[in-house]
Amino acid sequence: MDKKLSAALIIIGNEILSGRTQDSNMQFLGRELGKIGIFLEEVRVIADNEDKIIETVHQLRNNYDYIFTTGGIGPTHDDITSLSIAKAFGVELELHEPSAKKMKEHYGGNLNEARLKMAHIPSGSSPIETRITSAPGFKIENVFVLAGVPMIARAMFDALSPELSVGPPIISRYIEALLGEGELANQLEKIQNKFSDVDIGSYPFFRKGEIGLSVVAKGINSEAINNIINEVEKIIKSKNCKYCIDDEVI
Amino acid sequence: MDKKLSAALIIIGNEILSGRTQDSNMQFLGRELGKIGIFLEEVRVIADNEDKIIETVHQLRNNYDYIFTTGGIGPTHDDITSLSIAKAFGVELELHEPSAKKMKEHYGGNLNEARLKMAHIPSGSSPIETRITSAPGFKIENVFVLAGVPMIARAMFDALSPELSVGPPIISRYIEALLGEGELANQLEKIQNKFSDVDIGSYPFFRKGEIGLSVVAKGINSEAINNIINEVEKIIKSKNCKYCIDDEVI
Repeated sequence: MDKKLSAALIIIGNEILSGRTQDSNMQFLGRELGKIGIFLEEVRVIADNEDKIIETVHQLRNNYDYIFTTGGIGPTHDDITSLSIAKAFGVELELHEPSAKKMKEHYGGNLNEARLKMAHIPSGSSPIETRITSAPGFKIENVFVLAGVPMIARAMFDALSPELSVGPPIISRYIEALLGEGELANQLEKIQNKFSDVDIGSYPFFRKGEIGLSVVAKGINSEAINNIINEVEKIIKSKNCKYCIDDEVI
Repeated sequence: MDKKLSAALIIIGNEILSGRTQDSNMQFLGRELGKIGIFLEEVRVIADNEDKIIETVHQLRNNYDYIFTTGGIGPTHDDITSLSIAKAFGVELELHEPSAKKMKEHYGGNLNEARLKMAHIPSGSSPIETRITSAPGFKIENVFVLAGVPMIARAMFDALSPELSVGPPIISRYIEALLGEGELANQLEKIQNKFSDVDIGSYPFFRKGEIGLSVVAKGINSEAINNIINEVEKIIKSKNCKYCIDDEVI
């Protein structure tokens, strides 16, 4: 089997840490990467702080195949991601002419220095351009720098994803039952030990006053996943409780 | 001025990384900590992996006043947080008798080994008990270990929060206007340079086809925050666009 492809995400933004903004890029990227066989293995949320951005990029970039960042590439003083990433790689920011041209067309006489800041990307990086904004993201070595606004982050991910290596897609099936987790824990552990290349998760839920659990089997070995779901189904059936089985809807 | 109180959060769970589950504990803790003057400065999301949990706790616990973890304290094989934290501190897990007693009352004859696992906490730790579950969280040194289920995480936070040192509350006011960020960026930077103890953030929004921005002033110096909002209001007024000012609703 080939080496598993891995990714880490760095979410940059004081507004996420303070709770002002609910992040949704993590869930989006976790799912989209999974579909193309790349495991999102770590996420860090950090402040708009140059030293912290540089330190975090250095800590992560050699440990994962791909690093994504979101946030901090806008026009204002608190948007310091591009400059920080440039410094992390020891290069300068330079004007990306095609983006500047697009901005001139879009803003006309309202194109000012602050807006033009968004057309600057690190020397040696490749722009990530989309139709929905004239300001690009960029790729430098294995680091992809995306906007924080979810709509733009998604468009940038769509634009860059053809460049990513693709692994076997991560498949996920689940079985849900109106059972407490503790009822199944023992048997589930035995099944996990038998199928070590599939990740079996057990998650409780509370719905309409009833307690239930979702058992999720996730990995790239679809035969093992089906066997796991079948074994769990047998156990649940023997307990005579309501249950359902489905593929994970991504 | 006293030293700023700081916290980090470690979210433990494969289901968050895969995108199956949208985390909401980060936003909750960011807000609640802010109300009592503790800055959430870093969040890490990691897998249910013993080595990774131990490494992350060691990396963070000396850098922040408080560490919180969520997730992985249930009854199943993938719930390895308590054991991993015990190992990080070089201690064993031991039965917390009052929790075991509560479980016996709750589960009766259905109390099995898997469920009793949830009544084990590291030797030398203090339990975090709530009314909504017989399974406790715990505190060991400056690390608070909470459940991942948001309802239980919240109850545990309410139970532990009286133990936290309290700083001056973090205040946040904002002004929203139907203006592009780039229109204001230059002046905003000058204001930020004048008020260095307040964190000024600028966030774009798209609502009903209109582009706008929120300027957020956040910190513990309420006079400076009011001055910032007044200065930004003057600039926005001069541009004759619709705007509103409010305290951040937390």
